[in-house]
Amino acid sequence: ARPRVGYFYTGKTGSQLLTEKVKQITVQEYQSIPVVVNQSSSVYDAICTMFLEDVGTLFVVDEYSTLIGVLSRKDLLRTSLGKQDLEAVPVSIIMTRMPNITVCQKDDLIIDVAQKLIDKQIDALPVVKEVDRGTKVEVIGRLTKTNITKVLVDLAYDELI
Amino acid sequence: ARPRVGYFYTGKTGSQLLTEKVKQITVQEYQSIPVVVNQSSSVYDAICTMFLEDVGTLFVVDEYSTLIGVLSRKDLLRTSLGKQDLEAVPVSIIMTRMPNITVCQKDDLIIDVAQKLIDKQIDALPVVKEVDRGTKVEVIGRLTKTNITKVLVDLAYDELI
Repeated sequence: ARPRVGYFYTGKTGSQLLTEKVKQITVQEYQSIPVVVNQSSSVYDAICTMFLEDVGTLFVVDEYSTLIGVLSRKDLLRTSLGKQDLEAVPVSIIMTRMPNITVCQKDDLIIDVAQKLIDKQIDALPVVKEVDRGTKVEVIGRLTKTNITKVLVDLAYDELI
Repeated sequence: ARPRVGYFYTGKTGSQLLTEKVKQITVQEYQSIPVVVNQSSSVYDAICTMFLEDVGTLFVVDEYSTLIGVLSRKDLLRTSLGKQDLEAVPVSIIMTRMPNITVCQKDDLIIDVAQKLIDKQIDALPVVKEVDRGTKVEVIGRLTKTNITKVLVDLAYDELI
């Protein structure tokens, strides 16, 4: 729940109110369910999972559900062009690996995640929770450009205020 | 075009001003450059173009620059899994074909395009211009979820108002 104080201070303009409102929306209000594959899965299995779940980004986890990698449609398309047998190549060979993954947390601001998606030119971020005193992270959600698009539509139809 | 009366009537709240502002942004303010391939290109060439140009959606045109199809990363990934020789398959076999393509025009509202992207579960729309008395369309731009994400960031940093 969003704090409901201060929106109607006198002296604020409409655009200030808007700006402040947009800056209060958090990841957990819009995040989607993450789709994960095990690090021992083959590239072929990952592609099948991507089509079955109809997502553009998969998260790769180990046996303790710790996030260890990310797979985009682009990674899978690049690999499928090669001459390898896709059932023989494990996803761990082609994934982007921690710590090179941009992540976010459920209390982060949507607007900061939107900026990261633009800057890094990626389609989705894993929403993570730190475990083992911050040495590892678990994936608890997925924040995509589709979620961001939904924020804008809700703003326009005044669903947020 | 939306009627342009009444935006600053006294009695409007900040949220009403916001909503009205968001509803005035048009496609041409945020569209990207379109990346096209000819209908006689092979799937292999299309995949190379997609990587070289770093886009997620290609538009397929005929020799008169008329839009005849759309190719997504998903279409190309699906095809690359098959046993065919990708250099021998023309894109016209696998593309989504007119009139099954959702399009937009430069004066359309961003918010309406955002809603279409969500409803149709696609990543980008071609921005088109009618030619030959509306019987055909030319591609003049590309409107993606990245463009929509940029709108939200600009709103938050008050770049629009």
